[in-house]
Amino acid sequence: MSVYIGVAGASEPDASLIPMAETLGRCLAEAGAIVVCGGGLGVMTAVCRGAQAAGGRTVGLLPGGDRASGNPYLSVALPTGLGEGRNVLLVRASDALVAVGGGFGTLSEIALGLRMGLPVIGLATWGLTLSGEPVEAFPIAQSPEQASRLALDAAKRSINRP
Amino acid sequence: MSVYIGVAGASEPDASLIPMAETLGRCLAEAGAIVVCGGGLGVMTAVCRGAQAAGGRTVGLLPGGDRASGNPYLSVALPTGLGEGRNVLLVRASDALVAVGGGFGTLSEIALGLRMGLPVIGLATWGLTLSGEPVEAFPIAQSPEQASRLALDAAKRSINRP
Amino acid sequence: MSVYIGVAGASEPDASLIPMAETLGRCLAEAGAIVVCGGGLGVMTAVCRGAQAAGGRTVGLLPGGDRASGNPYLSVALPTGLGEGRNVLLVRASDALVAVGGGFGTLSEIALGLRMGLPVIGLATWGLTLSGEPVEAFPIAQSPEQASRLALDAAKRSINRP
Amino acid sequence: MSVYIGVAGASEPDASLIPMAETLGRCLAEAGAIVVCGGGLGVMTAVCRGAQAAGGRTVGLLPGGDRASGNPYLSVALPTGLGEGRNVLLVRASDALVAVGGGFGTLSEIALGLRMGLPVIGLATWGLTLSGEPVEAFPIAQSPEQASRLALDAAKRSINRP
Repeated sequence: MSVYIGVAGASEPDASLIPMAETLGRCLAEAGAIVVCGGGLGVMTAVCRGAQAAGGRTVGLLPGGDRASGNPYLSVALPTGLGEGRNVLLVRASDALVAVGGGFGTLSEIALGLRMGLPVIGLATWGLTLSGEPVEAFPIAQSPEQASRLALDAAKRSINRP
Repeated sequence: MSVYIGVAGASEPDASLIPMAETLGRCLAEAGAIVVCGGGLGVMTAVCRGAQAAGGRTVGLLPGGDRASGNPYLSVALPTGLGEGRNVLLVRASDALVAVGGGFGTLSEIALGLRMGLPVIGLATWGLTLSGEPVEAFPIAQSPEQASRLALDAAKRSINRP
Repeated sequence: MSVYIGVAGASEPDASLIPMAETLGRCLAEAGAIVVCGGGLGVMTAVCRGAQAAGGRTVGLLPGGDRASGNPYLSVALPTGLGEGRNVLLVRASDALVAVGGGFGTLSEIALGLRMGLPVIGLATWGLTLSGEPVEAFPIAQSPEQASRLALDAAKRSINRP
Repeated sequence: MSVYIGVAGASEPDASLIPMAETLGRCLAEAGAIVVCGGGLGVMTAVCRGAQAAGGRTVGLLPGGDRASGNPYLSVALPTGLGEGRNVLLVRASDALVAVGGGFGTLSEIALGLRMGLPVIGLATWGLTLSGEPVEAFPIAQSPEQASRLALDAAKRSINRP
């Protein structure tokens, strides 16, 4: 059974995140993982482009009802018509999640993942505080290569859990 | 862009439906369509087995939260955690729907498809009446081969609609 | 704990259904039930108007994201942004369902209700056939008064089920 | 038309949050708002108890399929069967959101609210950072009274937006 790694990230990210997302997609595909994402632009396009360039498979869970709104690097493009509700589906469909960059949609996927017990890995993304003190709720990777490794390891542990 | 054909059908169908569903899957795959279904047993297993035997791709939108509950003939298995709510997703993700046999889940997918304007093709499935009079709400195929043809034609017309 | 009765019905029904839906709403409210519906026009407006005229409470699960799209007879109007996906919510939120008239949305709610084991009562609504033979999947009421009685009885049995 | 204020908060919060949530519920009810929440324990019970004590109405969007799982202070209790997916519904059904305390479910509702353009008010809840710098994405109230006022003001501005 394949490993499914969710990748959360904004449609209009900082330019510096694009090559990181593309490398992340390549690493995940080289390890045989299926990349699941929101199927849109920005980080989502970059991670899918990277994954497909390495021969990998990509799944896009689109917010709207029109398949044509998906990016061109999706092996499977699924309109959901759920708007931001598809963020819940992304978390449910993944064995681990990598959150890339800022954006509130990405933050919602981090939070839903943590709430549902999904392993979450951060890459240049949100930090959290409570009462002014930092809360380290999930590991932060220093590179897309490390993010891929951490996510794959966590996903395999998660799947093998009795 | 690939054509996505949804197939609705029960997990415990009449035995006679199994070879029909398998042939349907084969025909759809031979035409290059991606088969989308609920990912479970019965009709869902048979249509996926048929599609994969012909080299096709299959997507399962699972009702529960566990990927392992999907049948073994899924190219992509997506737990949704939505229960019967995933029936809505099946309809949204498809360019046309073939309904195979009875079962109330199948009836819900027929009805949601008709409500959302999706082309629906019946194969040994429910008929409808209002005030005791038959209502022909969707075409009935006489064979899985014909169901595949009708669904593919309707899907292509639907996709090309401006 | 109150009893919640779902009422399914079209936004543009036959004119003859309007007084039936209004009477149904009145009967349900007189028995102390909360009426749950899609919150729109037609049957939904009529059943809510009848319920509120008798001092009852009404809940509308709106398909869109705008509360103002609800009809004026809702005690509680909840935008869901789920489109036809809110039909699943209507079924989940009800202890029994009365289906009034035709319409494919109504048929989807009948089917989802039957699939999930919810008691369903029909009133001038769809009939079903399989292989050309009628299937009596749910009781048909001859009047809104009888529909209300059957739904309330079934809901109470359903709630008290261990 | 009534104002609907969503309240997000954990089922097992710090004890200090309970009286704050109860006061928040009372203030919202005194202003005529309908309180919408997840319908569970902890913060959710406290805010509903406060609101009902002041004669207000409360709506619970329950994660499971069983109405009996709701707390005893709900005017309307709606099972959704969506699990954490009901967090999306809470945001869609609210004109403004008050987030009380920590918890990842609460964080997901903050994030979904910000993503969908809903006014969000914090009360002893999460802070956010990006690249180590604090991000003030939403106003923080210093008391439940202030949280109520800020939420009501923001909700009215939001509703009156053309």
